[in-house]
Amino acid sequence: MIRRLCIFGVGLIGGSLARALRAANACEEIVGCSRRPEHLREALELGVIDRMETDPVLAVAGADMVVVCVPLGAIGAVFKTIAGHLADDAVLTDAGSAKMCVVRAAEQAFGHIPPCLVPAHPVAGTERSGVSASFASLYEGRRSIITPTPVSDPEAVRRVRAMWEAAGAQVVEMDATRHDEILAATSHLPHLLAYNLVDVLGRMEERQEMFRYAAGGFRDFTRIASSDPTMWHDICLANGDAILMAIEAFREGLADLECAVREQDGKTLMDAFARSKAIRDRFTEQNQP
Amino acid sequence: MIRRLCIFGVGLIGGSLARALRAANACEEIVGCSRRPEHLREALELGVIDRMETDPVLAVAGADMVVVCVPLGAIGAVFKTIAGHLADDAVLTDAGSAKMCVVRAAEQAFGHIPPCLVPAHPVAGTERSGVSASFASLYEGRRSIITPTPVSDPEAVRRVRAMWEAAGAQVVEMDATRHDEILAATSHLPHLLAYNLVDVLGRMEERQEMFRYAAGGFRDFTRIASSDPTMWHDICLANGDAILMAIEAFREGLADLECAVREQDGKTLMDAFARSKAIRDRFTEQNQP
Repeated sequence: MIRRLCIFGVGLIGGSLARALRAANACEEIVGCSRRPEHLREALELGVIDRMETDPVLAVAGADMVVVCVPLGAIGAVFKTIAGHLADDAVLTDAGSAKMCVVRAAEQAFGHIPPCLVPAHPVAGTERSGVSASFASLYEGRRSIITPTPVSDPEAVRRVRAMWEAAGAQVVEMDATRHDEILAATSHLPHLLAYNLVDVLGRMEERQEMFRYAAGGFRDFTRIASSDPTMWHDICLANGDAILMAIEAFREGLADLECAVREQDGKTLMDAFARSKAIRDRFTEQNQP
Repeated sequence: MIRRLCIFGVGLIGGSLARALRAANACEEIVGCSRRPEHLREALELGVIDRMETDPVLAVAGADMVVVCVPLGAIGAVFKTIAGHLADDAVLTDAGSAKMCVVRAAEQAFGHIPPCLVPAHPVAGTERSGVSASFASLYEGRRSIITPTPVSDPEAVRRVRAMWEAAGAQVVEMDATRHDEILAATSHLPHLLAYNLVDVLGRMEERQEMFRYAAGGFRDFTRIASSDPTMWHDICLANGDAILMAIEAFREGLADLECAVREQDGKTLMDAFARSKAIRDRFTEQNQP
């Protein structure tokens, strides 16, 4: 049971966590903190938080669980304002989509990696954002990846794991670097590709009204291009190295296909498509809702 | 009203057209033709066709509407077998995803572009294939692009248009070259990208079990990688030039994003993502079901 939960950034991610923990009766009090009081007032009116604080130091006072759900690019600033003000039994975690950058930000803010820090990444979300889009079941059955550091206190790890399990998530533990590589390939790269495709087509659009003829495949493929640009801007800057590796692998694969199309090399195309279909069909089977 | 409809290839596309025209009471008799009698027997049992023929010459005899719904790569062979055997009042059309290649195939098979030929492309489909996956409403509200040639008989154009309208589609007329460019960008390229992403991740998978951590965005983005490899192999060979142009535009855009990630150029990323989101959101609004 969490005594006092302090959430920085009560949007889709933070708001859904608050709703889920309240629904599970897993915390006594929820304090929301943000630089934007109007966001906090909305969260308060919706009953997502019990109390609002715009001063980070007051917000973390007495909190035994501090969850930083602000955009990746703002986590470092939050860490700096709360360093030295956490309660003795406080656990510090976050919900960012990249993890090494969170460890680096903490090291900079605290002067060392604090043992109470257990970075986390709930692999869930929608294209919508803001507390009004939050809902208690967002994490149900989804994976939440926690990436304890070498100095993480085992008790802090246990409490962060328990929090996500109470919110309905399946918790997986892994190394922060491995997390960043996997997410770069399975999430960050697809977002970049979808954004890029829409952007490239948008430039053609002026001439050709491209989108009038786009079908369902295009709609699904580019749905993630409706995601929050600020969030993805932050992720690209925070997880640049792993993203560049993923782009490079993708670029090499695409060059092979391009070459096969140019040379009318049917076998290479057929082999690649059949291989992909087999993998994708297996993914569908393993991820039936 | 179509007197006798002859469909080559009674799979998802041909079968759904047959079902739709029957449901609309738009044809008297439907003859199915295929090299695979077991497919025709299934279509017959399902009531999708009235009669089966494995001999193309017998199949087209007396048919006033001949629709070739075989994979793109097989259209030329069908044209060759039926050249010289069409009824005097027959209209010839197809349902392939690329159109210039159909015109070229007809020219080769008939020795000239036949005036009865009106190539068409219903922009609809699912990842599933075969007559058992066909359904009457597949084309409802979807676009069907018809690409009359300079020598197409206006009466043939009118009849192909009427057929697709009877099947529930909105018919759009355009030049075959323009069709191929637009579809390369909005459909063929996304399929190549999805296939490539899954393939690239599949190679990483052996090390990292990538797919266990993939979320909903990845699922939607790569859904089309479950499409029929043979169909996409054919499309890549048939529409190679336009696809290469689309890949090149995509590659240049991706190189700009890659450069921005490498140089931590937040402004370029933010601008590109915001631009794409605006376009994609507008697309969503214009394409509400």
